[in-house]
Amino acid sequence: MIEVFPNPHPDRTYLVESVAPEFTCLCPRTGQPDFATIRVRYAPGKSCFELKSFKLFLGSFRNEGHFHEDVTNRILAELVAAVDPVWMEVRGEFHVRGGIATTVTVRHGTLPAALAGVEPAVWPGPS
Amino acid sequence: MIEVFPNPHPDRTYLVESVAPEFTCLCPRTGQPDFATIRVRYAPGKSCFELKSFKLFLGSFRNEGHFHEDVTNRILAELVAAVDPVWMEVRGEFHVRGGIATTVTVRHGTLPAALAGVEPAVWPGPS
Amino acid sequence: MIEVFPNPHPDRTYLVESVAPEFTCLCPRTGQPDFATIRVRYAPGKSCFELKSFKLFLGSFRNEGHFHEDVTNRILAELVAAVDPVWMEVRGEFHVRGGIATTVTVRHGTLPAALAGVEPAVWPGPS
Amino acid sequence: MIEVFPNPHPDRTYLVESVAPEFTCLCPRTGQPDFATIRVRYAPGKSCFELKSFKLFLGSFRNEGHFHEDVTNRILAELVAAVDPVWMEVRGEFHVRGGIATTVTVRHGTLPAALAGVEPAVWPGPS
Amino acid sequence: MIEVFPNPHPDRTYLVESVAPEFTCLCPRTGQPDFATIRVRYAPGKSCFELKSFKLFLGSFRNEGHFHEDVTNRILAELVAAVDPVWMEVRGEFHVRGGIATTVTVRHGTLPAALAGVEPAVWPGPS
Amino acid sequence: MIEVFPNPHPDRTYLVESVAPEFTCLCPRTGQPDFATIRVRYAPGKSCFELKSFKLFLGSFRNEGHFHEDVTNRILAELVAAVDPVWMEVRGEFHVRGGIATTVTVRHGTLPAALAGVEPAVWPGPS
Amino acid sequence: MIEVFPNPHPDRTYLVESVAPEFTCLCPRTGQPDFATIRVRYAPGKSCFELKSFKLFLGSFRNEGHFHEDVTNRILAELVAAVDPVWMEVRGEFHVRGGIATTVTVRHGTLPAALAGVEPAVWPGPS
Amino acid sequence: MIEVFPNPHPDRTYLVESVAPEFTCLCPRTGQPDFATIRVRYAPGKSCFELKSFKLFLGSFRNEGHFHEDVTNRILAELVAAVDPVWMEVRGEFHVRGGIATTVTVRHGTLPAALAGVEPAVWPGPS
Amino acid sequence: MIEVFPNPHPDRTYLVESVAPEFTCLCPRTGQPDFATIRVRYAPGKSCFELKSFKLFLGSFRNEGHFHEDVTNRILAELVAAVDPVWMEVRGEFHVRGGIATTVTVRHGTLPAALAGVEPAVWPGPS
Amino acid sequence: MIEVFPNPHPDRTYLVESVAPEFTCLCPRTGQPDFATIRVRYAPGKSCFELKSFKLFLGSFRNEGHFHEDVTNRILAELVAAVDPVWMEVRGEFHVRGGIATTVTVRHGTLPAALAGVEPAVWPGPS
Repeated sequence: MIEVFPNPHPDRTYLVESVAPEFTCLCPRTGQPDFATIRVRYAPGKSCFELKSFKLFLGSFRNEGHFHEDVTNRILAELVAAVDPVWMEVRGEFHVRGGIATTVTVRHGTLPAALAGVEPAVWPGPS
Repeated sequence: MIEVFPNPHPDRTYLVESVAPEFTCLCPRTGQPDFATIRVRYAPGKSCFELKSFKLFLGSFRNEGHFHEDVTNRILAELVAAVDPVWMEVRGEFHVRGGIATTVTVRHGTLPAALAGVEPAVWPGPS
Repeated sequence: MIEVFPNPHPDRTYLVESVAPEFTCLCPRTGQPDFATIRVRYAPGKSCFELKSFKLFLGSFRNEGHFHEDVTNRILAELVAAVDPVWMEVRGEFHVRGGIATTVTVRHGTLPAALAGVEPAVWPGPS
Repeated sequence: MIEVFPNPHPDRTYLVESVAPEFTCLCPRTGQPDFATIRVRYAPGKSCFELKSFKLFLGSFRNEGHFHEDVTNRILAELVAAVDPVWMEVRGEFHVRGGIATTVTVRHGTLPAALAGVEPAVWPGPS
Repeated sequence: MIEVFPNPHPDRTYLVESVAPEFTCLCPRTGQPDFATIRVRYAPGKSCFELKSFKLFLGSFRNEGHFHEDVTNRILAELVAAVDPVWMEVRGEFHVRGGIATTVTVRHGTLPAALAGVEPAVWPGPS
Repeated sequence: MIEVFPNPHPDRTYLVESVAPEFTCLCPRTGQPDFATIRVRYAPGKSCFELKSFKLFLGSFRNEGHFHEDVTNRILAELVAAVDPVWMEVRGEFHVRGGIATTVTVRHGTLPAALAGVEPAVWPGPS
Repeated sequence: MIEVFPNPHPDRTYLVESVAPEFTCLCPRTGQPDFATIRVRYAPGKSCFELKSFKLFLGSFRNEGHFHEDVTNRILAELVAAVDPVWMEVRGEFHVRGGIATTVTVRHGTLPAALAGVEPAVWPGPS
Repeated sequence: MIEVFPNPHPDRTYLVESVAPEFTCLCPRTGQPDFATIRVRYAPGKSCFELKSFKLFLGSFRNEGHFHEDVTNRILAELVAAVDPVWMEVRGEFHVRGGIATTVTVRHGTLPAALAGVEPAVWPGPS
Repeated sequence: MIEVFPNPHPDRTYLVESVAPEFTCLCPRTGQPDFATIRVRYAPGKSCFELKSFKLFLGSFRNEGHFHEDVTNRILAELVAAVDPVWMEVRGEFHVRGGIATTVTVRHGTLPAALAGVEPAVWPGPS
Repeated sequence: MIEVFPNPHPDRTYLVESVAPEFTCLCPRTGQPDFATIRVRYAPGKSCFELKSFKLFLGSFRNEGHFHEDVTNRILAELVAAVDPVWMEVRGEFHVRGGIATTVTVRHGTLPAALAGVEPAVWPGPS
């Protein structure tokens, strides 16, 4: 489902960060909607994922039931399977339910030393 | 009382953070209500705790008398007994009483190196 | 004067922080009131101090004359004598007098490595 | 239940504001806890309400089921019955439930012109 | 679909504000998800709307296609039909699409003079 | 070029605000790019403008030369011609050129009294 | 020196605001540089001033000696002479000299009622 | 296309940072405009790039289709080819598309130890 | 001139910080007043300085001419001579003169490891 | 041109920071004014530079044409030639030109270990 394309600059060390504040799925117990901001950061290896297919991939969870811990891991797992990155972090910041807010952060691989200290994207930017 | 479920991704290194600003119990001396924000962060081992049961677990203290230091440790102890995490921190930020505010922070286990520098959840998020 | 109780979880490594913005004593020279916020942070050993008696202890300085450096050290000294902590910090943030504000920070013992990086309480919290 | 005392300065036009961020009652449908900040502002007539009894009055809702609109009106109604103010506003700012936050603001009487523009208390202050 | 209940205090002048940042429907042209914060403010007449049914009502748009202007008006129209308020405002703050963010604000009836100047809810509150 | 559709609720008094921070055209003197945020607020009459065509309409200036004062007025004029609103305001906030930033605000018609005090959209919203 | 061009939309009521934070001239007493932000807001009549010539006009003061009050009035006077606006305001916000910062605001004509409440430009915008 | 000039101080260790918030190109799939802030930081070797030609270089992408990852790398690649820096970072902060914002950060070479800790430019400055 | 008293707790490791935003002396060239905030931080050895005499000491510069670099060093030198601290820092933050603000920071001795990370007092703003 | 005076405390390790937000020179290509904030930080060796002559030195660039990279290096070079510091940093933060803001940071020598962590001056201060 996630389209990939060959890393156009495999000789470069770089970081891609995509922030998606419009993630929604269903609670597997009550069927009621859950909402989250999903943040993906990765250092590409041989492939990159295409952004429109990433959006559709996130949208595919819209009417499915998923636990927070599981769905965040699954997003990472499917992205890792698709692009085999040097390093990747997926963070799901879920909205309050029952007075409790939950954030899940999963990491894969090793951050290249040359990318140490790259600041996370400040969301939102000018638009 | 705390329901657990098998860690759906035991091969992954990840962090779960749940923030509950609606904790209330009673002062064991005066019987008057106490209020706190409880923050739990953990790296799951074989199990995760289920969020609704966690909410009910926190709610079970509502009409019981507890000292701040003790109740924060007990929340950690029961969560540790339930899920046996790789690392866990429980923080109880208690409201002002008698002009004094008290915060108790308890830790268990060792934070995996791969999770160093994960930022704490910013509460509240967009909802 | 400071009541203590046995550390209910001596096997745990944890930090207690109490913030008291209503400390007042007298200037030993002029007899005029001084005001300060007192912040205590400690990693308990065998004992904890009880919060109501801590409040009364702080209140006992109300009509006594004390120098800033001395009273901050004395608060630490009496708390250390009472609970023999693994680590303790007492900070007295005194209000402006004669156009000068003075803060005194005293430390005792060694902070356990497992507590490195615990953030100080953000005062004020939700109440 | 609400204790009152004679307005000590009935010849003065003044405003009293009490902010209680620790209000909790139960949802009448689910039995689960609800939380709110209650803000009362009033221009006293012949009587004022006593603050400790006000705290206990708010605490009396702790284990009762109440709808947001109703309980905010009832707090106003009981306070009005007790002190017959020149003007009173009660505002209940309820925490998020199901992704929706609700605030109810009830007013009684006429704000004296001399009090127009008094700014609401900024909570929290230094303690 | 919107459940109502009799205004429990029809003799009082009051304002109810509900803020729902988790509204989502579909774009009627592309079928892609749209997101918005819906804010409802109203002075009840004979009836109030029940909050859980309001949540379900908002959720019913989840998989339907709607234009921003129309859906905001329709939410107002259905709420007005259900509760016949003295005054109501519905505001839909839609997320950026194609680099453009759109907000629609609809009003019905006349705000009672006694409610002039009630501040909008500050979202988010403590949870 | 601007597509319109019949106001779906011509009996309602409402305000639509669209904020477009990605407007760009060329300087008519130097041919170099200019940038602006365009804000449109209007109370619809018989018609509304369709948002995608509005985006394309703004995009049509991309490679044309225009003075700030003129282009802001022209956007208003074309929108007015298309939808004949009860009231409309167009604001062009142009980026710094030569150390000077210029903002042009044009208004047409009369704001309905019922819409007085509607707050401008806060850009950016949650996404 | 100030180039003008015919108001391209003399039938419209609109406001132009130009903010120039790079104004500098000399102190007439010491010959040392002074610095200021100049803000011009005007409702055009038959003419508008051209922005590049306005920049050069402001730059022409660079090596001349001027008092704050005088130079702000002179900028207004020359702009009024050039474009004969319906309303104009010039504001000079001068940097600290000798520990004192001075701001001079001059107005000419009558602000059209339709432009009441237009918010001043927020400087700086996205660039 | 990028003009260079000999580093005027090749014996010095220094950092040049240029921030360009007005970058725009086209989406290679839809032809619709994309927008970004481009930040370049570099430690010059034998050459520096001239700022006006850098502006024109960025402007040359205006009507070309480019993927985010590729265009950020290409900007770096062309700048590296032109000036052969000791160290360079190019960061492209792209605006939201489909509810997702993407930032790409590419690095080349090794930051001289003497420049460790130089703070990034705070944009925008006073103008 | 600076009164000292024996460190009341020489066995303790602690930090004293005094912030004096009301320092004034004269410019040695023009005779005009200069203003600064003086911040002193030190770890006491055998003695502490008394705060009233410190205030008078600072006040003694009022009608004397002093260069910024020199007076900051002299304050440190006299305090060091008086109390022989383990570590001391004096910082003079001088107000703008001729459009230039100057800050001088002098250090003496070695900060004890146990005091690493003590946060500077937040005294509101630079003065 | 830069006057120096013997370091009055050559035995001390200290840092001097001067912030000049009113720097202006001309663009060597267009002759139009450029503006910048110049920040100088240095640890004096045998000499200090006198502030009035530093101001005049900066003012001497007012009507000269200079490239950003060059002029920042030249300011450093002349200051280094004049005072031979242990360590010096000059930072030129240039205002936006053509939609691009450029900052140049040059360093010379080695920062003494005892000055590590001295915070940069926060500009602007109270005047």
